[in-house]
Amino acid sequence: MKQVRMGVIGTGGRGQGLMKTLSCCEEADIVAVCDVYEDRVQAAADKVADRCGKRPKTYLDYEALLGDPEVDAVLVASGWEWHVPIAIAAMRHGKITAMEVGGSYSIEECRALIDAYEETKTPFMFLENCCYDKIELLATSLARAGKLGEIVHCHGAYAHDLRKELASSRLNRHYRLQHYLDRNCENYPTHDLGPIAKLLDINRGNRMVRLVSVASKSAGLKQYIDDGNVDDPSLQGEVVRQGDIISTIITCANGETITLTLDTTLPRYYSREFTVRGTLGLVAQEPEMVFIDGEADGHSYAKNEKNAGQYSAYLPDIWKNITEEELKLGHGGMDYLMLKEFLRAILAGEEMPIDVYDAAAWMCVTVLSEQSIREGGMPQEFPDFTNGAWKTRPRRDVVAFPQI
Amino acid sequence: MKQVRMGVIGTGGRGQGLMKTLSCCEEADIVAVCDVYEDRVQAAADKVADRCGKRPKTYLDYEALLGDPEVDAVLVASGWEWHVPIAIAAMRHGKITAMEVGGSYSIEECRALIDAYEETKTPFMFLENCCYDKIELLATSLARAGKLGEIVHCHGAYAHDLRKELASSRLNRHYRLQHYLDRNCENYPTHDLGPIAKLLDINRGNRMVRLVSVASKSAGLKQYIDDGNVDDPSLQGEVVRQGDIISTIITCANGETITLTLDTTLPRYYSREFTVRGTLGLVAQEPEMVFIDGEADGHSYAKNEKNAGQYSAYLPDIWKNITEEELKLGHGGMDYLMLKEFLRAILAGEEMPIDVYDAAAWMCVTVLSEQSIREGGMPQEFPDFTNGAWKTRPRRDVVAFPQI
Repeated sequence: MKQVRMGVIGTGGRGQGLMKTLSCCEEADIVAVCDVYEDRVQAAADKVADRCGKRPKTYLDYEALLGDPEVDAVLVASGWEWHVPIAIAAMRHGKITAMEVGGSYSIEECRALIDAYEETKTPFMFLENCCYDKIELLATSLARAGKLGEIVHCHGAYAHDLRKELASSRLNRHYRLQHYLDRNCENYPTHDLGPIAKLLDINRGNRMVRLVSVASKSAGLKQYIDDGNVDDPSLQGEVVRQGDIISTIITCANGETITLTLDTTLPRYYSREFTVRGTLGLVAQEPEMVFIDGEADGHSYAKNEKNAGQYSAYLPDIWKNITEEELKLGHGGMDYLMLKEFLRAILAGEEMPIDVYDAAAWMCVTVLSEQSIREGGMPQEFPDFTNGAWKTRPRRDVVAFPQI
Repeated sequence: MKQVRMGVIGTGGRGQGLMKTLSCCEEADIVAVCDVYEDRVQAAADKVADRCGKRPKTYLDYEALLGDPEVDAVLVASGWEWHVPIAIAAMRHGKITAMEVGGSYSIEECRALIDAYEETKTPFMFLENCCYDKIELLATSLARAGKLGEIVHCHGAYAHDLRKELASSRLNRHYRLQHYLDRNCENYPTHDLGPIAKLLDINRGNRMVRLVSVASKSAGLKQYIDDGNVDDPSLQGEVVRQGDIISTIITCANGETITLTLDTTLPRYYSREFTVRGTLGLVAQEPEMVFIDGEADGHSYAKNEKNAGQYSAYLPDIWKNITEEELKLGHGGMDYLMLKEFLRAILAGEEMPIDVYDAAAWMCVTVLSEQSIREGGMPQEFPDFTNGAWKTRPRRDVVAFPQI
């Protein structure tokens, strides 16, 4: 195989973005697209035809796409609640499966995903693009090189003001709002947790053992709606169950803690707040900084900030060699780098960089946080989806790091 | 009374710093100093003589100082474990009492402090200087003016690399190290929690209801000692119980959450990470920013940072009028502003800005966090030291804010 024949299931905003990036990957050929909305799927096929000169087949039913023998692999970019059922069906159809991120609805769902993989051994990749962003990879590289000492604590956030998107959700056939009405939980843990879990070798020598989650009151989205920022009368009187700020603390088997913040319904600037703390140094995203013992000033961040460039020798090749054009491909380049690594692993027959055990462990944070919040912050134990194999599974970094 | 005759109990680093600032307050006359170390107390008295032209009396026994009829008020700046016993004795001697900050050792100790106050009604102030720092007061002023909307969440940290101080503790007759050997808890909560609690009207219309705390492993101080950074052979083989990072989540009666981080034994820059989040805006210390809906850019902090100066009209007069000389008096001016307000309240016969209920509520976080950590993150309920009065006690800000 020299090119992967791809089907894309789900052609909303995210599916369209991924298709645009995918059409710039010479290793991929988009041969089929699927959505429940006829207008969306036709528009998506038209765009691929414009870009690639060849119109993919269109499907309204994902099972039909999965039965297409001309499809080698699928990207699942549907609404959150359909990620796992579609991915399971895809693996059972023998289609190499790349699943978009989100939280999970039950531990059983996570186990079913694992079962489908273990029964079929169909290659599965979890599309956590933030595992490929620059500061996350720089931090991991510095950690691998021993520059940070023993890693003790990591922090991350999904801090993104989604009020406008949520309040416009029904007008745009978007699925996200309903989650904010129905649930109260860390509903989107993987952008922050994913790179941290890879750095901490979760499921590969380490594992997440326990978490506590606490929710603030829910006031931001209601105020936004009440202030008349979006004209959708159906929203009046809706009760938002989702708290504005969800704080979660995870404890790992090797003694590290991870703190996560979900922060999507109050005014703010975008950030993932990615931070790694070791006995010899720290790396932080906001304010951006590499702070190594003996190489930095402890008085204030202002004397150290934005110095990450001094450590660029530690960046992986994919970030050293990235072009201006590639930087424009999906979230500042990380979507492109992720898809390239996915396709490379397929064509080289390698293990997937982010696998089904990663997906289950990271996504189940949503369920556990929901339970903890409901119980006033009671600790919840993580299932071990590897069934004990975490103790001996070898490290799998998402890219190769320079040997310095 | 036109001048307050002050006794200072405890003349270590903190006591000396406070005396230096106090000697610049015309409302105070330092008439007595006390320490268990003869050399320290004599040196402290010499310094006061040099600065003020009059040598204070010296005591080795705080009970003797408290019996001195020429002392109107005392500052308690002893080691942490002696704060409460000395403050209780001072109130029972009828001396106006200003007590330095720290964590508490038991709920009973906090109750005994309350009892001493309620039985004697001796004026008591908790010396939480960070309640007087600039960004904390700016945020509170903006909140009072309604610019931040409904307050939903606050965050703070005591993030201060104390490894050198801790590892040199025994060489300097300092008390702090022993806490790190004996306990594992949020051992210093008030610098971050104090300003937040005042902003959220804790004990005055609101109260802290519950917390969870989780500790990371303890690795930073051990590595620092093992790497030979301080020459004290007595440290070899000591076991550090205190985790490097303590994460705490507090839930308030009015639905707000407060997150606190204790972060003192890993390499880093100093920060309190003070952050206030409301439905209409945020104020943050690091990166410094005032972010108001409609007045700021949500894409990245870089477009908004260090703009707090644009909101300086909201600063209280004490920060608008501060002089270059005053800014040099103890932690960038805040010690001076705090002591001035303390002395002003005494001379005007006003209620103390930070009272005994504040002290008990904030300090008890240490005990509750210790218990929660020991129990794997189990939620702990806060005692109500006001015995229900929190529902109706009126707001008491630490300074007057401009009416805008």
